[in-house]
Amino acid sequence: MPANTFGEKFRVTTFGESHGVAVGVVIDGVPPKLKISVDEIQKELDKRKPGQSKITTARTEDDKVEILSGIFEGKTTGTPICLIVRNKDQRSEDYEDLKDILRPGHASFTYLAKYGIYDYRGGGRASGRETIGRVAAGAIAKKILSKQKIEIIGYTKAIAEIRAQKIDYTQIEKNPVRCPDSIAAKKMEKRILEIMKAGDSVGGIVEIVIRGCPAGLGEPVFDKLDAALAKAMMSIPAVKGFEIGSGFQSARMLGSEHNDEFYFDKKTSKIRTRTNFTGGVLGGISTGEDIVFRIAVKPTSSISIYQNTLDIAGNKRNIKLKGRHDPCICPRIVPVAEAMAAIVLVDFIISL
Amino acid sequence: MPANTFGEKFRVTTFGESHGVAVGVVIDGVPPKLKISVDEIQKELDKRKPGQSKITTARTEDDKVEILSGIFEGKTTGTPICLIVRNKDQRSEDYEDLKDILRPGHASFTYLAKYGIYDYRGGGRASGRETIGRVAAGAIAKKILSKQKIEIIGYTKAIAEIRAQKIDYTQIEKNPVRCPDSIAAKKMEKRILEIMKAGDSVGGIVEIVIRGCPAGLGEPVFDKLDAALAKAMMSIPAVKGFEIGSGFQSARMLGSEHNDEFYFDKKTSKIRTRTNFTGGVLGGISTGEDIVFRIAVKPTSSISIYQNTLDIAGNKRNIKLKGRHDPCICPRIVPVAEAMAAIVLVDFIISL
Amino acid sequence: MPANTFGEKFRVTTFGESHGVAVGVVIDGVPPKLKISVDEIQKELDKRKPGQSKITTARTEDDKVEILSGIFEGKTTGTPICLIVRNKDQRSEDYEDLKDILRPGHASFTYLAKYGIYDYRGGGRASGRETIGRVAAGAIAKKILSKQKIEIIGYTKAIAEIRAQKIDYTQIEKNPVRCPDSIAAKKMEKRILEIMKAGDSVGGIVEIVIRGCPAGLGEPVFDKLDAALAKAMMSIPAVKGFEIGSGFQSARMLGSEHNDEFYFDKKTSKIRTRTNFTGGVLGGISTGEDIVFRIAVKPTSSISIYQNTLDIAGNKRNIKLKGRHDPCICPRIVPVAEAMAAIVLVDFIISL
Amino acid sequence: MPANTFGEKFRVTTFGESHGVAVGVVIDGVPPKLKISVDEIQKELDKRKPGQSKITTARTEDDKVEILSGIFEGKTTGTPICLIVRNKDQRSEDYEDLKDILRPGHASFTYLAKYGIYDYRGGGRASGRETIGRVAAGAIAKKILSKQKIEIIGYTKAIAEIRAQKIDYTQIEKNPVRCPDSIAAKKMEKRILEIMKAGDSVGGIVEIVIRGCPAGLGEPVFDKLDAALAKAMMSIPAVKGFEIGSGFQSARMLGSEHNDEFYFDKKTSKIRTRTNFTGGVLGGISTGEDIVFRIAVKPTSSISIYQNTLDIAGNKRNIKLKGRHDPCICPRIVPVAEAMAAIVLVDFIISL
Repeated sequence: MPANTFGEKFRVTTFGESHGVAVGVVIDGVPPKLKISVDEIQKELDKRKPGQSKITTARTEDDKVEILSGIFEGKTTGTPICLIVRNKDQRSEDYEDLKDILRPGHASFTYLAKYGIYDYRGGGRASGRETIGRVAAGAIAKKILSKQKIEIIGYTKAIAEIRAQKIDYTQIEKNPVRCPDSIAAKKMEKRILEIMKAGDSVGGIVEIVIRGCPAGLGEPVFDKLDAALAKAMMSIPAVKGFEIGSGFQSARMLGSEHNDEFYFDKKTSKIRTRTNFTGGVLGGISTGEDIVFRIAVKPTSSISIYQNTLDIAGNKRNIKLKGRHDPCICPRIVPVAEAMAAIVLVDFIISL
Repeated sequence: MPANTFGEKFRVTTFGESHGVAVGVVIDGVPPKLKISVDEIQKELDKRKPGQSKITTARTEDDKVEILSGIFEGKTTGTPICLIVRNKDQRSEDYEDLKDILRPGHASFTYLAKYGIYDYRGGGRASGRETIGRVAAGAIAKKILSKQKIEIIGYTKAIAEIRAQKIDYTQIEKNPVRCPDSIAAKKMEKRILEIMKAGDSVGGIVEIVIRGCPAGLGEPVFDKLDAALAKAMMSIPAVKGFEIGSGFQSARMLGSEHNDEFYFDKKTSKIRTRTNFTGGVLGGISTGEDIVFRIAVKPTSSISIYQNTLDIAGNKRNIKLKGRHDPCICPRIVPVAEAMAAIVLVDFIISL
Repeated sequence: MPANTFGEKFRVTTFGESHGVAVGVVIDGVPPKLKISVDEIQKELDKRKPGQSKITTARTEDDKVEILSGIFEGKTTGTPICLIVRNKDQRSEDYEDLKDILRPGHASFTYLAKYGIYDYRGGGRASGRETIGRVAAGAIAKKILSKQKIEIIGYTKAIAEIRAQKIDYTQIEKNPVRCPDSIAAKKMEKRILEIMKAGDSVGGIVEIVIRGCPAGLGEPVFDKLDAALAKAMMSIPAVKGFEIGSGFQSARMLGSEHNDEFYFDKKTSKIRTRTNFTGGVLGGISTGEDIVFRIAVKPTSSISIYQNTLDIAGNKRNIKLKGRHDPCICPRIVPVAEAMAAIVLVDFIISL
Repeated sequence: MPANTFGEKFRVTTFGESHGVAVGVVIDGVPPKLKISVDEIQKELDKRKPGQSKITTARTEDDKVEILSGIFEGKTTGTPICLIVRNKDQRSEDYEDLKDILRPGHASFTYLAKYGIYDYRGGGRASGRETIGRVAAGAIAKKILSKQKIEIIGYTKAIAEIRAQKIDYTQIEKNPVRCPDSIAAKKMEKRILEIMKAGDSVGGIVEIVIRGCPAGLGEPVFDKLDAALAKAMMSIPAVKGFEIGSGFQSARMLGSEHNDEFYFDKKTSKIRTRTNFTGGVLGGISTGEDIVFRIAVKPTSSISIYQNTLDIAGNKRNIKLKGRHDPCICPRIVPVAEAMAAIVLVDFIISL
């Protein structure tokens, strides 16, 4: 089953390869009469684009989006919206030597195993550039959510062993790591630069908080809200784990600790819980509390250190990659994870 | 979107409530001419059924399965298979008092928020009994996989802070915890009994290993194999996290450590990797190495300790549950997680 | 892709074979808090059941429905509803001789070509008994529609060359042919009896009218309302054609004749059309006028006249069927077509 | 549910409006390593493009296709293929006056009823230009089918009361009507010109024959091959009916006439049927005989004759359309119907 479409009521179909003509997305199911401008979409793409800071890849793409359909006189019409971004700064020649080589940690091996053919240039379809379509669709999803006062906030929670000690949302966009703790951010940046200099890469943890989500979203028993979020997050390149609320920590907890106590909040006239170990989802359905989840991000597989590997024919090779790579993908995964979270939520919210 | 169906080519639809007439499943897309007997399905259900040991719920259900369709003269015909298990030992009277109470950690609150009505008896649709349909379908999925020499092994990796120190598959079914380390198993059992005595519950970690899976399974970019597994696992009641391979540990690793080195294995004439940090999935597609993932299991929410909560009307209540509950659900989640893993794999494998 | 599920938001999954243990249906996506009784479902099944009159098959099945899930204290809960009907009067021995024979006009040949195995008893899955699940689901769909004042009326429009000359809905249930013209009904009944006596069968045309459907239903460009209805109707055994509004007659018309003129109806304060050549659907979306379509029904393939055919091995055979068959299936297709129309409409209407 | 995607394994998503920036398609599920050139796709688009002859619309679009993704070094890679055609000769000013008018027979009324907003220029999304994406996808589908020796032949069977009396495939592309009977073709052309001169339009019947399709395609009970074809055809603008094999004629037939006799064909060593009243599909599964079906095409709704209608506000208006319209859409529906048939077949054939 081909699977370049995500969602059921808000359907996002991405297409395009890293070094092809263009990457893009078709979004079907956008409610009609929504005001949306190119600038609103571009703004989200700018958060994801390469070359933002000295700790991201030097590939320079301005990633300008073009709207091909579905928007008429500044408003959506209910018909599918196609958005494209043409690839420009490809430097495909950097990949000529790698044509027949299985890059460790890369999808080249598995794509070949599956399809028997692979666009080796820059990661082809498995490239992070595929996520441009997701972010563009996410911009529209966020616009829909904003009408319902739902907000999605993503940030880097940890890099290597450095963890954010406090969460101050106002700090996130003030540092290149997208960390909500300005002190930890500086340490993270320093560490990434060291690792970059050594030609290596490093992993991290990204956290997403969804605020303002009403109780009642999620479709048991298989499309539980947390299950849908898990799938969306695990579909992002480099993500190796997902946990919600207490997550893996819950394995060590007692029921008497973990059960969130219900109380009646007079201010909002709502039933709420005093703690939120469950992370805003119970039985697969949102509780109305903040939805809080984390994803584990592996170190970028493209590194400039010699590695033993094989070529397609099975011959031993020793390679060192020349491409322009991110030493830590967390800062650029933040907008992608936000976009996917927005897409998931909208899919549950739309009652078209 | 209703979501009681899982899978696309191998479609599993479960139905039924804990205290309703029956629980069951319809499985569509089973290849024709597969030999399958009631006993093979019953065997898997027996692993999941209550009352197996002193550390599981005392509800006594023999959970006998009945085949209603799709099997003719001992073989599948390619038509949908309906399997049902009638509920017997319900004791719905235990729940009469709880009718209007929001049980902490339970889905009663969110089901009411979503549907405005709730079958409160024993958890209704949110009950673990819903997973009977999954396990029955999983029995058929496992049979299909066994023809391709693919094996799924699940076990309890950790309970509270006790972790299995070694993995000996032969030990798993020899202890009530389903732990592959017999020494850790004893400690776990003892701990669970203590917690049970205190009326409390505890969480744990379950690990699944898939052996013999060929390279090439998974559908980028959205139905990546790990993404599909994550969704399947997160859809199981009580699961709060999923990680594959190095998982959350990868956040602390360097690329030079994490990248699995390719080598040519002369014995099998296959390209393999020396390490398996990636957990058998690269770019969302299986590598041919073992697929290894873990799920975080929260402590059972039903406990026999007084808890503060509310009734539906928002009045304060203090409750202590009388039902017969599992103090730690890990041992009984093992067959459910295995079943879901089998269902995911078959869905990718079938080329009907 | 297995395809025993119909619909997206209101999902109907049927299962079961003619001579198996039971036939049934799982309906997912039924809105919660809908009052529905066994009797309401049984009433629809009674319209479809065999042995209603001397012009239907003599197989006597009382087709009593059992509710297994999804209904709690007389109301739906938003969880899947499973309904089953056990097979009773099978007489599988009638089919023993036919085991290896390709019955002309029957699906035995194509099922074998597809699956390589076939439950030959009474048509197996290809039997009309499969439609029991559809009619049971349709009863619930009709209940949902009735809340919105939408009504579905089906009837036999033609048998052989005899056509209803007038449409009087009050007559439909007063004759065994389900014809809205009492005079034509008598002629049809007489003709069917003659054909039956000769061991033969005959085709006909069934018309469906949907009244009260609001404007705006249908999902261009692929799930147009008429396209969805066409698929639903063509999925009913024995149906060979579908046309809406002017249908095949439109091929001979001019645009100036066919275009329905818009006018403002003061009584209802609605924009309406003076004619309804389009049959209530324009551009795949309902106009608010009556939706009117017809289906072509082929003569039942089971006849008691000697026919030349082959056995599975390719040997010539000459057979005469002994089973109890309908000489004309139109009267019993009426409730099935109504049910499928109701299912289609509800799928478009539900905004879950 | 948004529905601009067709198919499950071979998924075709179209986008674009008549007077927007571009129309196009994303095709997901194309098998890898298929050789396909721009020219092969262009050739099919040329059959559909406007301005082919004096009996088609004078809008002059060269409809040049651009490949954005999914094809690498002349071969498919298994990743989604995006194809676009930019709109050029729009003349949106022709539609300025029609902005607020409900054109009889047009989707403007129902689009407004559904979405509350409508791109009125040239039919917007409801325009026949949407089918460009279908034809482009169909070109790829046909290429896949050609590898399996499956051929799809479409032609105009009737215009008004003029019917093709013989079927000579070699004649189809030799006349502007795409009629396989050269004598009937001349009469049809003459009739269309007369009607065109009068500012009017006319309907017709298109027939499709699929040759070389193996037995065994189709997915009972809901995605029967004929049901899927019916939906595909009814989703084409202007189509009002579908019938397969004997179709509506079967209503007048006896079972003894209609049942196709099985015989063993020594030449091909296959079980075949002497007649083909069933049209190549039995029980929803292909028999291996030619699949033969017909669609009813209504007269184009855009006519240059004064018509009474309303504006959006409900005021009476009398209009005469100025646009450049096809007097009979049958010749240009032929490639669209062929494309949709190819897409349906490939979806059933692919065992990805």
